[in-house]
Amino acid sequence: METPDALSAIFTRRSIRKFSPRPVEGRMQETLLRAAFAAPSAEDAQTRRIIVITDRDTLDSLPALHPSATPAREAPLAILICCDTSTAPQTLFWPQDCAAATQNIMLAARAMGLGSLWCGIHPVEAREQAFISAFSLPGMVRPVSLILIGYPLQDFFDEQRWNPKLVFLNRWGHPFEPSGPTE
Amino acid sequence: METPDALSAIFTRRSIRKFSPRPVEGRMQETLLRAAFAAPSAEDAQTRRIIVITDRDTLDSLPALHPSATPAREAPLAILICCDTSTAPQTLFWPQDCAAATQNIMLAARAMGLGSLWCGIHPVEAREQAFISAFSLPGMVRPVSLILIGYPLQDFFDEQRWNPKLVFLNRWGHPFEPSGPTE
Repeated sequence: METPDALSAIFTRRSIRKFSPRPVEGRMQETLLRAAFAAPSAEDAQTRRIIVITDRDTLDSLPALHPSATPAREAPLAILICCDTSTAPQTLFWPQDCAAATQNIMLAARAMGLGSLWCGIHPVEAREQAFISAFSLPGMVRPVSLILIGYPLQDFFDEQRWNPKLVFLNRWGHPFEPSGPTE
Repeated sequence: METPDALSAIFTRRSIRKFSPRPVEGRMQETLLRAAFAAPSAEDAQTRRIIVITDRDTLDSLPALHPSATPAREAPLAILICCDTSTAPQTLFWPQDCAAATQNIMLAARAMGLGSLWCGIHPVEAREQAFISAFSLPGMVRPVSLILIGYPLQDFFDEQRWNPKLVFLNRWGHPFEPSGPTE
């Protein structure tokens, strides 16, 4: 499959909140999941566990679990990223591992022309409990993020968030100037 | 610039630990930083602060601050991702925001033929203190991750981490089968 080049996907991914009801093809679902697993994890511990949500009633129930998940009523697909903390290294990097997987899914979605919205769960205790209860997650499994996915009814564009004032060179407070060769 | 398609970049990014001393071009440095800022952040709060490290002595000092940063002795570039927690929303998603920015940098690096290595800092208290001290970070600024970057002396390939047994459909324990149209 031909997809946009990687830098274009990174720069034109943005939060999508309006979705077409068109279902996401099975092949694309698997590509999104493979992208999640391709993200790095601390000590390569592979602690991520994923629930794919395509059932209409379950999708419709998501806004009651998360204040930003209202677009789930239109979206045909959601992906719940969890961590089996019983398998996580003691260093507690698992929320960041799950965030990297979430970002990979969103970029893979963008690459295939799909929109996505990241709804953060961990470490908001009440949200975690709501998802643990709704999805009967086992004791050591913690829900970290929910991603709504579908064909977008909004355009992709570069949101232009670049702010060089927030970047320093070699030490805090020293303005960044690109310092390498210029080719 | 022509770069690999987005899915290829996602699937063939891997941890690189052997770097050429060849400097990273200034234009590429800026692209990496722009990619970091293109990552989503909770409530769009833009709490990330970044230190670009190109100074040889500073790069050589990194292995003393982080047990996985030994390759910094060869790498020509490192990027320290921090959060100004004084600007972060109360929801405490900032480590995940920084992780998404880290992943974007690593994918942008891969897209441009650069290798990268993610060295996690937060929430390991001793590592945080070491970076706060070495870079004189202001009081509310927390270091989250260090990324080593350079031209790789290892190949990119798909590490094949996909494990469908860790994915469920609609509820925990129910095996995932792609369920959408097949085109």
